[in-house]
Amino acid sequence: MHDAREVVVLRYGHRPGRDDRMTTHVGLTARALGADRVIFPDNAGQSAETVRDITDRFGGPFAVELRDDQQAIVRDFEGVVAHLTMYGERVQDVEGDVREAVGIGGPDATGGASTPRDLLVVVGGEKVPWALYERADFNVGVTNQPHSEVAGLAVFLDRLFEGAELDREWEDADRRVMPEATGKTVIDADDAEDSDDPGTEDSDDPGTEDSDDPGTEDSDDPGTGARD
Amino acid sequence: MHDAREVVVLRYGHRPGRDDRMTTHVGLTARALGADRVIFPDNAGQSAETVRDITDRFGGPFAVELRDDQQAIVRDFEGVVAHLTMYGERVQDVEGDVREAVGIGGPDATGGASTPRDLLVVVGGEKVPWALYERADFNVGVTNQPHSEVAGLAVFLDRLFEGAELDREWEDADRRVMPEATGKTVIDADDAEDSDDPGTEDSDDPGTEDSDDPGTEDSDDPGTGARD
Repeated sequence: MHDAREVVVLRYGHRPGRDDRMTTHVGLTARALGADRVIFPDNAGQSAETVRDITDRFGGPFAVELRDDQQAIVRDFEGVVAHLTMYGERVQDVEGDVREAVGIGGPDATGGASTPRDLLVVVGGEKVPWALYERADFNVGVTNQPHSEVAGLAVFLDRLFEGAELDREWEDADRRVMPEATGKTVIDADDAEDSDDPGTEDSDDPGTEDSDDPGTEDSDDPGTGARD
Repeated sequence: MHDAREVVVLRYGHRPGRDDRMTTHVGLTARALGADRVIFPDNAGQSAETVRDITDRFGGPFAVELRDDQQAIVRDFEGVVAHLTMYGERVQDVEGDVREAVGIGGPDATGGASTPRDLLVVVGGEKVPWALYERADFNVGVTNQPHSEVAGLAVFLDRLFEGAELDREWEDADRRVMPEATGKTVIDADDAEDSDDPGTEDSDDPGTEDSDDPGTEDSDDPGTGARD
């Protein structure tokens, strides 16, 4: 979250077409839950475009990169590598060690402050090579059950940051959603400090099309996402 | 998690083909992270089959239902309804209220023990009707940013159960993954209490095909998931 350290999510492997939506969701989840950057394989251009579009509209900073050298990225990463896999150690057992390794949270066990180090979180797509298991400083299982790489990433990041990512402020956003008990209110971000003025609200009619909410429409279709 | 209360996840809306993978991941995430049951729209038969197949192999109890009356399920649910939406109240602000409403965790604010109540967690697919926002006891935003319904469900369940779901024991599993720092070990669940015997291990060669790990292959293709 733009601290002393950088948290980078690497989507390992991507099959164009078939994986577009999952890869997009990996990127959007990385952005929403506190990572600073996501790296996609270079054949995932459509997903990259969607995540950049969301960042343009809802704010950052958050970077999206396309790279063709997945194995080299992992091998040469100068920092801590955490690989999410159902075969790994239980997240509840190792999350404290990961935090300490990258210097998140309080002083370390020796009583000194931990030194911030960059963290690469690897999320599998296609089969990952055995070398990744060996290079990883932590192979982490968010449960040892088969489920979803997006779910695993979400729980891992929420635990890594101990929920602090939920209070993140966004810069350079065009729009902002106002949390509320019953409603769907989006305001112009420039007017966020002046939201008492009903004239600045941009609230949709409830029940009408709402393509920015991935829960109700496809967040990976930037063409239908424009609301202005 | 098979307590006094039932936690049910409802996948609201599904477009066959396009949504198969997301719907499957909603179901697998619900199962892995402590829900008791998932309800899919009746056109999501393929996703239901995959989740049932995973439950057969990795254990339960976990139920999968296909229903065509999504609106009625929400309207008539006898219990608490939590709808996950980016327009909702911040999860960190309302998770305690949700827990108290369904009787998870300690005594309630009045000092008495909360009464267990069933919980319906609604995860949007297609556009959800405005009536859902109104019926929901809680509209909950896991961030007010667009990301992924699978990620939102995962963080919501992990916070709802305060991590207790990660320690869940599975019944009637054929196989069990052994968490480890570097390795990919699957054992016959019947031999789980006797795993010192190397003869009972069923560990894959590292780096070989591993279709049970959604991080490395498609968990939604039951045809390639069989390893025995």
